[in-house]
Amino acid sequence: MLTLAFEPDRLRVVLVAPRNPLNIGAAARAMSNFGFRHLRVVNSFEPSFREARSAVGASAVLAEAQEFKSVAEAIADCTLAVGTTAVRTRDLQHQVRRLEQGARLIRKRSASSSVALLFGSEKFGLSNEDLSHCHWLMRIPTCEQNISMNLGQAVAVCLYELIRDSKAVAEPARLSPARAEDVERITTRLIEALHASGYLTRRRVADSEERIRRLVRRMNLPQRDAVIWQGILRQILWKMGPGANAADHDEAKGA
Amino acid sequence: MLTLAFEPDRLRVVLVAPRNPLNIGAAARAMSNFGFRHLRVVNSFEPSFREARSAVGASAVLAEAQEFKSVAEAIADCTLAVGTTAVRTRDLQHQVRRLEQGARLIRKRSASSSVALLFGSEKFGLSNEDLSHCHWLMRIPTCEQNISMNLGQAVAVCLYELIRDSKAVAEPARLSPARAEDVERITTRLIEALHASGYLTRRRVADSEERIRRLVRRMNLPQRDAVIWQGILRQILWKMGPGANAADHDEAKGA
Repeated sequence: MLTLAFEPDRLRVVLVAPRNPLNIGAAARAMSNFGFRHLRVVNSFEPSFREARSAVGASAVLAEAQEFKSVAEAIADCTLAVGTTAVRTRDLQHQVRRLEQGARLIRKRSASSSVALLFGSEKFGLSNEDLSHCHWLMRIPTCEQNISMNLGQAVAVCLYELIRDSKAVAEPARLSPARAEDVERITTRLIEALHASGYLTRRRVADSEERIRRLVRRMNLPQRDAVIWQGILRQILWKMGPGANAADHDEAKGA
Repeated sequence: MLTLAFEPDRLRVVLVAPRNPLNIGAAARAMSNFGFRHLRVVNSFEPSFREARSAVGASAVLAEAQEFKSVAEAIADCTLAVGTTAVRTRDLQHQVRRLEQGARLIRKRSASSSVALLFGSEKFGLSNEDLSHCHWLMRIPTCEQNISMNLGQAVAVCLYELIRDSKAVAEPARLSPARAEDVERITTRLIEALHASGYLTRRRVADSEERIRRLVRRMNLPQRDAVIWQGILRQILWKMGPGANAADHDEAKGA
């Protein structure tokens, strides 16, 4: 389940004069991925819109998209209209906010009323006339060397920022960690194997064993892996022959 | 300028078995948008890679992309390999972290060593063999109804999360606000105009004027607009004829 800080049904994604049917489809797909439903298309190049709509796998979002003849009509039911731009300061008529900050204001407003988020055409972006309908502008923080994003990717990034959960910091459920007795059993068997193999000599045993114990602790084994490691070591001890670890000999086949 | 919390040059974006040249190009474009340089492609469908590379406008990222025969080779110089997945718990071999949280760990690690971020093929994602090279998995928080993202969009969203600035909250520079004397001059002229037009009657003047004063304050005018509004009101007063505001008559043409 998404932890939404706002009401995605109150957002209208408005594509103004899109040209490429693949981009219209990509915008709709990102909306579907992130739980947005209301796509509005203004002055689309008609064949593009038809092609996008009839594409195999076109989403419900695309099927329900509404067409408008002007920006004014497309945003009529909204109390806030935000234009997207690649340019930092296109003109001084508008404030330009970074996406991180703009998204916060959009979430806030959409808690009580509808908000329009406008994207311009692939080639020219939003025109000055389009922008005059906007309360402020938002830009994705791209590099100065390449500020121009693909339309479908820009839509995806903006919608992601709207639904991302700044509180999603908790560690996910880990595999249940190994019990100390199992970790110690592995340690013991490993030390036996290292002696049996000649890796450890009888000298400096105390220090060596402590090092091995810490080595095994650093594996941070989950319980299931602890079981596997015990089997592996039993088998190795068995293979190294009688005397290496006679007591475990019979268990080896259970590994 | 990007405020980067980490070193983007230490990230390797690894596309495993990508099929669609448009997606390879889109991944490269998003990398270029967000300041990443190292694209690695494993087992690409050869014609796709050639086509993507030779596309008009193919980026420097794509031109410098490296090809590898196996995931092991592609991530050899990295100390952390993170696989992307749409599935919440593909298998219990791996922890699955949400993007918001995983990106934080990637930023941290990349401060000191190289990190690989793996994306699987459009159709099948990363295979179990691919995943076995990964330390943990990361998922974009999509809706359960449609978890599968377009490859180019998934790359864009992940890279955006890596470079987004959680501290980008400061208000951008506003247009400089109007001085109180100009706002009051507008208020006075508007009240005059409302009287002259008959909108305001002489009754209840005190209360009406306060309402108008608050109305004008709520416009939150920037200085440049205060100048324009004074001109507009001067002109209107002039048009309404002598007696409406004789004192301003001569100034009207300066509006």
